[in-house]
Amino acid sequence: MTEDITQLAQLLGNKLAAKDWQISCAESCTGGGVGYAITSVSGSSTWFKKGFITYSNEAKQDLLGVSEDTLNLHGAVSAATVEEMATGAAKHANAEVAIAISGIAGPDGGTPDKPIGTIWFGFFINGQNISQKQLISGDRQAIRIKAIEFALSNTLKLL
Amino acid sequence: MTEDITQLAQLLGNKLAAKDWQISCAESCTGGGVGYAITSVSGSSTWFKKGFITYSNEAKQDLLGVSEDTLNLHGAVSAATVEEMATGAAKHANAEVAIAISGIAGPDGGTPDKPIGTIWFGFFINGQNISQKQLISGDRQAIRIKAIEFALSNTLKLL
Repeated sequence: MTEDITQLAQLLGNKLAAKDWQISCAESCTGGGVGYAITSVSGSSTWFKKGFITYSNEAKQDLLGVSEDTLNLHGAVSAATVEEMATGAAKHANAEVAIAISGIAGPDGGTPDKPIGTIWFGFFINGQNISQKQLISGDRQAIRIKAIEFALSNTLKLL
Repeated sequence: MTEDITQLAQLLGNKLAAKDWQISCAESCTGGGVGYAITSVSGSSTWFKKGFITYSNEAKQDLLGVSEDTLNLHGAVSAATVEEMATGAAKHANAEVAIAISGIAGPDGGTPDKPIGTIWFGFFINGQNISQKQLISGDRQAIRIKAIEFALSNTLKLL
C-alpha cells in the first residue's frame, strides 16, 4: 500500500464512522487490495465486516448474485457487471456502501475494445448505483494500485 | 506488497499450476492482503477463483461456516477458528488449498493471553488441516505484511 492509499483509507473510515455506515467490497482484478487498504486503518472493524474476492465469473454469480445474462451480454468488465457486483456486496454484507472493481490488469487479456488498463468501478451508495470506467496506464502492479486509489478517492467524493 | 511477497506468490502459483490445484483464502486481520498477493501474479486466474474477507465473527459464520460454539469457546484468534475458516474457504471455493488468517494486528485488541502480534494461520491442504501460531513484532502495517509473507511461504513448504 502506498502512503496515499493508507491516507485515503483513513479519511474514508472517518467519514463512514461519522455516518455510522458500513462498507463492503467486491473485487476482481484488485484481488482483495481494496479490502486490504480499508483494513489498514486501526478500528476499521467498526465500518468493515465482510468483503468478496470474486476473480472468476462463477464467483461473481455465486457470492454476489451477478446474473449469467449480464456476464454473457456485457462481459465481466462492464458497467452492468460492476453495478450488480456492488449491489450484491452491499446486500450480502448488509452495508450502506460497496465498491466493486472489474478490469484488465494485464499483461494478458486486452482486446481492441477493452485494452489493458480498462477498469470498471461500481459504487453502491445508500441505494444508488454509480459506475465509472477508467483507462489506467502502467504495468500490472501500477494498474492495480491506481485502481485501488481511484476506488477509495471516488468513494470518498461520493459520500 | 514487498518484493519478497510477489516472489513467493509467483513460486506458489507455479506449484499450484503444476499440480492443477486451486487455492482460496479466508482473511480476518490481513483483510484481503493474501488474495491481493496471490493475484499479483499474471495468470493467477488459473489457480485462484474466489476469496473471503471475513473481518467480523458473523462474516466467519456466514461465509465460511465457522460455528458459533467455536467462536465462543476459543475466540476468533485460535487454532479451532482458523481451521474451520480454511476448511470453509476450500469447500466454498471448491479448492484443494486454502489459507486462513486471524490475529491481532493492533494497536488495540491485545490481551495478556493474546498480545498484539498474535496471529493464527490455518492451512487446508488437500483434505488436511494444519494450524500454526506466530507472535509477530512491529506496528500494524508490519504485522500484516509479515503475516502475508508467512502465510505464503508456509503454504509453499506444505505443498
